[in-house]
This record gives sequence, C-alpha cells and structure tokens, in this order.
Amino acid sequence: MKSVLGYTAHQFGRALIMPNTAPPITKVGQASTYRRQIKKALKDIGFSKTFEPLMTLYLTDKTTVAEIEKAAKSGFVKAVKYYPPNATTNSQNGATDLQKLKPVFEKMQELGLVLCLHGETIKSNIFGDSTRQGKVGVMQREKVFLAEKLTWLVSGFPKLKIVLEHITTKEAVYFVKNARKGVAATITAHHLLATIDDVIESHHNKCMPILKEEADRQALLDAATSGNKRFFAGTDSAPHSKTKKETACGCAGCFTAPLAIELYAEAFDERDAWDKLEGFMSLYGADFYGLSRNKSTVTITRQKTVIPQSVTYGEKELVVLFWAEKELSFLATFD
Amino acid sequence: MKSVLGYTAHQFGRALIMPNTAPPITKVGQASTYRRQIKKALKDIGFSKTFEPLMTLYLTDKTTVAEIEKAAKSGFVKAVKYYPPNATTNSQNGATDLQKLKPVFEKMQELGLVLCLHGETIKSNIFGDSTRQGKVGVMQREKVFLAEKLTWLVSGFPKLKIVLEHITTKEAVYFVKNARKGVAATITAHHLLATIDDVIESHHNKCMPILKEEADRQALLDAATSGNKRFFAGTDSAPHSKTKKETACGCAGCFTAPLAIELYAEAFDERDAWDKLEGFMSLYGADFYGLSRNKSTVTITRQKTVIPQSVTYGEKELVVLFWAEKELSFLATFD
Repeated sequence: MKSVLGYTAHQFGRALIMPNTAPPITKVGQASTYRRQIKKALKDIGFSKTFEPLMTLYLTDKTTVAEIEKAAKSGFVKAVKYYPPNATTNSQNGATDLQKLKPVFEKMQELGLVLCLHGETIKSNIFGDSTRQGKVGVMQREKVFLAEKLTWLVSGFPKLKIVLEHITTKEAVYFVKNARKGVAATITAHHLLATIDDVIESHHNKCMPILKEEADRQALLDAATSGNKRFFAGTDSAPHSKTKKETACGCAGCFTAPLAIELYAEAFDERDAWDKLEGFMSLYGADFYGLSRNKSTVTITRQKTVIPQSVTYGEKELVVLFWAEKELSFLATFD
Repeated sequence: MKSVLGYTAHQFGRALIMPNTAPPITKVGQASTYRRQIKKALKDIGFSKTFEPLMTLYLTDKTTVAEIEKAAKSGFVKAVKYYPPNATTNSQNGATDLQKLKPVFEKMQELGLVLCLHGETIKSNIFGDSTRQGKVGVMQREKVFLAEKLTWLVSGFPKLKIVLEHITTKEAVYFVKNARKGVAATITAHHLLATIDDVIESHHNKCMPILKEEADRQALLDAATSGNKRFFAGTDSAPHSKTKKETACGCAGCFTAPLAIELYAEAFDERDAWDKLEGFMSLYGADFYGLSRNKSTVTITRQKTVIPQSVTYGEKELVVLFWAEKELSFLATFD
C-alpha cells in the first residue's frame, strides 16, 4: 500500500476505494479498518495533503439490510460494489443471485447508498451466440450484462443510484445515455486510449472488462467529451507486480495512477475537448455522489512527459505502468 | 528443425512448408535448399516413413514472372504465399502493392501455381470505423481484407487458384462458400477449438490472424464439417520457444503439430461429424492442389490423451503445446 497509494493521493483529493481485497471488505467494520490503514500509510510515507478515502462494501450473497443501514450511518461508506463471480481480480465472492438481494437494494435506494457495478455477465445460457458451455465471451460480457441484469436493476429500483463502472462498449454508452435519472457511468483513461489490439500486444494492457474495438473507443470518447453529466472519470487503477503480469496468463488490471490526469488529458486532446475535461474529471462524479466539490486546483500544461517504465512495489517487486515509456503531451501540477 | 519436424512428419504424409523463415524463401533455389535440409533433418533423426515437403515461395515486391516460371517447372514448389507486411512472424518483406504484381498473378494462373493468402489487411484508410491512425484493428483485419484485396484477386484473375489460409471469421466462411470455382480456405485446429477468450487467458494461444469470437468459431465448425470441398485442414502449426511466448508481448503462433489430428478430431466430435473428417483432413486439400491422394491409413480411436506441457526445442529451449495439459478424447495411430 505504501508503494502505490501516494500516486493516487498526489493526483486526486479523494478516491473510491474498491473492496475486492483478499479477504474482501464485506462489513462496515472492515471498511473502517481499511480506511484507517490507508490514512496511516499516507502518514507513514510523509504525505501531507488532504486525501479522503471513500469506502465501499463488497456485495455478496450474505450482504444484509442491517449492514446497509450501518454503512449509510457510517458516513464514510459511499457505495456497495457488485462483482459478477470470477469476472476479475478477487471477484470469486461476488453475489450469485441478485433477485435474493432485493431487500438490500431497496434499503440502499431508501438510504441513498450508490450501487457500483462491474457490469459483466460471465455465465449465462440466454445468449447462445456469444456463449460457450454457458460462459459468455469476453467481448460480449458487458453487452449481455446490460440486457440480462442492468435493465432489471434500473427499472426494478427506480430511485437506486447506479454507477456502471469502467464501461467499454458503444452499447453501454447508449444504455447509460438513455437510462432514467440516477444512472451514470465511469470511464477509465485506458479504455479511452487503447483497444483489444493493445491487449494482444502486451499483458500490461490486460484488464477486465477487456479493452474493446476502435468503434467502442470512439463511442467512449464521444461520451466522455460530450459534457453529459452521466459520464465521469474513474481510473480503475490496479497495481499488479511485473512478475504476475509477465506470464503466459498475466493477471487483469492496468496501473494508471501516477499519471492518470495526464492520460485523460491525452484522450481529451484527441477531440480538442479541453472545455469538457474539468467537468468529467472533477465535478460530475462529486455531484452524482452528493459530495462537495474539491477546492484545490489542478493545472495541466502542454509538456512532453515520458511515462516511467515501472515503480517499486513492496521490497522486491516492480509494477509496470500502463503505456510504459510512451510519451504524453501533458503534465499536471497541483497546488 | 530436428526438434519439431518429426511431429509433423509423424502425423502427415506431406505438408506445405511456409516460406516466412529468416531470411525468407523468395527464390526457387532457396526452396530447393530448404527442401533438402528438411529431408536431411528427417534422415538425421532416423525418420523412415515417406514425408514430402511441398515448398512455397514468399511473395515480395520483387517477385518476377521468371521466378514463377522456374517455380512451376521445379515440380516441388506448389504455391506462392502472400503476407501483408507486418501481419505476423517474419512478414516484414510482404508485397506492398499487389496491383504491380499483376503479371506475376497472370503467370501463376497460366501455370496453375496456387496463391496462398495470409488474409489480413493491416494498413488501410478506407474503413474508418475499424481503423486507428491507418492501422486496422486485429478483430477487423480479415474482414477488411475480403473487401479490400480478396475481391480484386478473385475477380481480376478468374482462373487463379486461391487458398485463403487459416480463416477465422464468419465473413470469410461466407465469402469462400460463395466465391467462384478455384477459391478455397484452410482452417486450423486451434481456430476450430478456441476463441479470443483463450488468447486473453494465455499467450500460448496467441496467433495471427487472432482467434475470434464464439459466433465465428461456430461458423468455422459449420464450414469444416459441411463436406464442402472448399474447406480443408491446414494446421499453421508454429513452434516458438517458451521464453519468447511468456513475455509481456508473446510472439504469434500456436504449436499443434504433435497432436494435430487429435485436435481436429476433438473439434469434429463437437458436431458428431465423423463422416466428414476424412474429406476435410486428407482428400479435399490434395484434390485442390492436384496432388494424388495419400495411400496410408490413419486410425482415430476414442481414448483419453493428455496434451504434453511442452517438447524440447534445440539444446536449451522448450516449446509449449497449444492446449497444453488438456485432455483430448482421441488418439491417432498410423500404419
């Protein structure tokens, strides 16, 4: 944590802390401990600026209404995160039957707790063409999720605040753009910048949901630079050690935290959409979560910046950065 | 060569030897030397059965009509292979302008030399939606090739024998099925068995053209098991060392030679298409190339066979097999 947390805290005043740790953060008590650990780690590395970790709970089949009430009361738990089982890193505890969690969603809706979604369906038998032995293909998982689960959540809980995280397809853009009020989506820097081609070229670009095709990337750029408040930044930055990435398999996750703002700037520059960057990066997300807007200033200047190859990770490991050694056109400075 | 050639020679009576070596085989003289080396290597490893290497020439911008005449006269050069520049291993010398090679294609057509195609377009500006900075996305390259190059070749040289090699998409199946006489396609075992999901899971499944989606795999199975003589086996087996595969990038190629027939059997078994296997494996390809059919017999029995993890490669290296350690349901024996 001490190796990588500083990068996020340096670039952002706060971050939504994902609960897919090992073991997962399923209780408010665990979230509280994790939050303290984060604050202590920042102190230990001598970080002095304000950084607010916004905590989340991991939705499992055992999540209770009582825990939701406790979460809402805590003040520091801002969202509950759904992972489809076996979709991504440490997702094996994800809820298997959303229907049974109806009372949980109703309580979240009542108390204004946000439902964050890893929006993929891994197992399904209702879309034969994209499915093999009940397992949905990586390129189709988000699309199947929209039809199979998201429609039900959006209409079944009409006031539930829902964030479809790290969207990847033109279909997801279309869905969110046309959904009811209270439905939003985050977009990562790497999904704005790269495609499945980059995954084929390097495991360091492998993440879940997988990067899609150029037509999808263009739709994500359309959404991000549109000024539509339903779309805002969410890095999904995930540090995995070099040795765990550089294998035949390579685990899923892109590490973008050290230059996240510069990466987003690079994407927005492709569309000359400078006037839309602040809203996407700093305002719409805070507004959606009902948080006060940060007061500090980030200044982005046009200046060549080479992405470092890697940063140290623990005592003996390295984490390779997304787009390592590429040259960016921007540098962000912070007051 | 001595490490891996025996696997192919054990399973097959002959094979089309690809010319994308370093340096490439562009002249009949080189093909003749390579052919002798292959025969010598088989002798050196004590291989006693008949194995006929069918040679190919690498099509470059410098390929001449005279070389085509020489190739046809040689008797052992059976085809000329087109690689789009930078599409796959050692493809950097591929012809850049097919229009300028018109006299070459006309001579091939006249003399009955087959044109084998790595059917992908890498650079193109005419399909904006699938293209980034002039580079076509990996999932779209075969589809773009059909429209941009193959239509021109098929109609421009109406008697030229064309094999679209290692096809991967439902669009390619449709094209070949409906094309004029003299147009055929090969299908690899790995494209019949795996999809882009398997590439994401392991670099050992990475090959070019990249494995596509489940709907494409189903279309390939349809074609292979249809009994249509335009579709026949072509393994595209490519040994790369474990160390070259298990990196962040991982070079392109699947090594299927040691159990190629068993892998094809596994695919045909999915459709219970046993009556179509012999034609696909042994007859249609020979007929298309105008070769006499092999007389030896291959017997496939239902017997659990675990694919070995790897085989030795040179003095210090290993090659990991496609689908290493998976259990197949068949074993092939040879008279």
